[in-house]
Amino acid sequence: MVKPTSAKDNSQSVNAPTQRELPSTAPGRAEPVGARASAPLLVREIGSMHVGGRSATLDGLPGMDVTFSPGNPPFRVNPNGAFEIEQMYVQYVRLVAPRAFQPLLLMHGGGLCGVCYETTPDGRPGWQSFFLHAGHDVHVADAVERGRASWARSPEFLRGAPMFRTKAEAWELFRIGPEGSWRGNTGASQPYPDSRFPVDAFDQSMKQSIPRWTTTDAAIQAAYDTLAHDHGPFAIIAHSQGGNFAFNMALRHPGKVRAIVALEPSGFPDPVSSKLHTLAGIPHLFIWGDNTGVNETWLSMRRGLARYIAALRASGVAVDEFDLPSMGIRGNSHMLMMDRNSDEIAARVQRWFESRDLMG
Amino acid sequence: MVKPTSAKDNSQSVNAPTQRELPSTAPGRAEPVGARASAPLLVREIGSMHVGGRSATLDGLPGMDVTFSPGNPPFRVNPNGAFEIEQMYVQYVRLVAPRAFQPLLLMHGGGLCGVCYETTPDGRPGWQSFFLHAGHDVHVADAVERGRASWARSPEFLRGAPMFRTKAEAWELFRIGPEGSWRGNTGASQPYPDSRFPVDAFDQSMKQSIPRWTTTDAAIQAAYDTLAHDHGPFAIIAHSQGGNFAFNMALRHPGKVRAIVALEPSGFPDPVSSKLHTLAGIPHLFIWGDNTGVNETWLSMRRGLARYIAALRASGVAVDEFDLPSMGIRGNSHMLMMDRNSDEIAARVQRWFESRDLMG
Repeated sequence: MVKPTSAKDNSQSVNAPTQRELPSTAPGRAEPVGARASAPLLVREIGSMHVGGRSATLDGLPGMDVTFSPGNPPFRVNPNGAFEIEQMYVQYVRLVAPRAFQPLLLMHGGGLCGVCYETTPDGRPGWQSFFLHAGHDVHVADAVERGRASWARSPEFLRGAPMFRTKAEAWELFRIGPEGSWRGNTGASQPYPDSRFPVDAFDQSMKQSIPRWTTTDAAIQAAYDTLAHDHGPFAIIAHSQGGNFAFNMALRHPGKVRAIVALEPSGFPDPVSSKLHTLAGIPHLFIWGDNTGVNETWLSMRRGLARYIAALRASGVAVDEFDLPSMGIRGNSHMLMMDRNSDEIAARVQRWFESRDLMG
Repeated sequence: MVKPTSAKDNSQSVNAPTQRELPSTAPGRAEPVGARASAPLLVREIGSMHVGGRSATLDGLPGMDVTFSPGNPPFRVNPNGAFEIEQMYVQYVRLVAPRAFQPLLLMHGGGLCGVCYETTPDGRPGWQSFFLHAGHDVHVADAVERGRASWARSPEFLRGAPMFRTKAEAWELFRIGPEGSWRGNTGASQPYPDSRFPVDAFDQSMKQSIPRWTTTDAAIQAAYDTLAHDHGPFAIIAHSQGGNFAFNMALRHPGKVRAIVALEPSGFPDPVSSKLHTLAGIPHLFIWGDNTGVNETWLSMRRGLARYIAALRASGVAVDEFDLPSMGIRGNSHMLMMDRNSDEIAARVQRWFESRDLMG
């Protein structure tokens, strides 16, 4: 359970270190960790890979003539044949001298891709940049059928239809404004009075929105599992839908996950049938923004997660929770990595990594 | 026209500098430019942005109940409302001390996204990495509706149907093997005997394949034009379908394009109605791989491009051509940036940048 606490009480769960207990990453310096973002990065390697997936074949579809480029004759296309499907994409930046003992993997939520961790919609350096500057080799994932992972023909390979998130849905589901506050366009819509989301950049943030299928969880999980198995261990930061994939990666490959920071995770493994004791060596941090208590969608998600968190603790897993409003930090949306205090939240995550002995 | 030349004749067009005339980027060193890829990069900034696009609205579609995450109740989704559509994505890596006078923009071809310039399918550093090491700030684009640019609901916003490229089509169109050489799977298919493509990684390369619409050229062009206008000037390397977009960017914003390297461009602006004389200050380099003469698709494309190249020259544009087989470099596929000699080709491009006074 998420314990209700007063705004004065920074220790929002029994296992959460207080701010005073958290070591600074830069002893003798008053600046937050984020202040280092202007320093140059000494980079060993920038690259990417596609991970997982399989070959699959289509037949029986009719051929067609397609003009691909102006000025060229039509090209006869046979849509039948072999394809690669269900792969995921990972981009990495490796430092010459990382301080972290393991690379960091940033996992996005539903309806988004890894871009959410890059430059914020209002143009500030994002968490990819922050954690590079904090000394992590950073991997940014695009899950199966999202972003640069690419997507396969539907409904032949991807069952059902893709979902496209409206601005209204994002505005309310991401808790930028209360339910019913969307007025057809961003300018006319009232955010929460203390919203930390860069509201003037809301339309820009919606350019990051990625269609999704709801039938692909197993394929997404399989690719993440392959990533952990073949390229782990990782410390993981996972947002929203990404949380459940991260939890399951740890259950399948506990030796390949060193820590999980779950940003408002939207789902979780069955606490009864899952072997949660295998996670005993993997510290978990849960972070919650503001206004989750006035919205039935989020109340329901938090109730579910509270069950999972209780089961983790009962299984000997070290769990910390940052309920930001209880720590006096008001107005955060679901998009914690985009909010105007994104660096401050990242700095708290970084101090947690330090406290959990994940940094050299 | 592309002049047929002997293998001994490196000067494959009247305007092309010979290898001897090209200055080395590293005087006194025998290694190719690519040899520097193992040195650390001093990076000032890694980030990304979405550019262009517009708000658009849907109505009249029925609502539906969707379960987004396991363990959560269904969520009522109204598919109608406002969306952002037709934006493109650009990721950039900026150096502390770039040598190039202008950033480099890497534009991908059809059925692909910017990933084609990242790590090669067989795991070697790609051109993004190469040109960073050569001293360019490198921007990598995902065109509208490709990769991290995201895509909009179809057919409501994107007319027609998405095209998915089969392995057979890629194998033959990319000239990895001759027409008719695809045998249903990669292992059974015979590449050109001297193929430079990393054939063992062909299936891996197909994981990069991105669905495309053929109705979106105007939207793609508009976003690239906005990119040039708002964020130029750039030197550009454009592959295949990307070539025509690059040529048109230069025509619309000649002050924002410093040079164009066109890798086997598949299309071109109308040479008669276009104001090609406005490109007089923008040097062009065209690069062609092997086996374009035995394939009607490529013969036709090259005939068209030869008309465009002749018109450019007649308008006073400095045009060089690297017809690789005429320079004694055999076996290159359409995927020059993935071929096993990708570093060697990149080094020739880099020497061309030097020769055209684009480097400090």
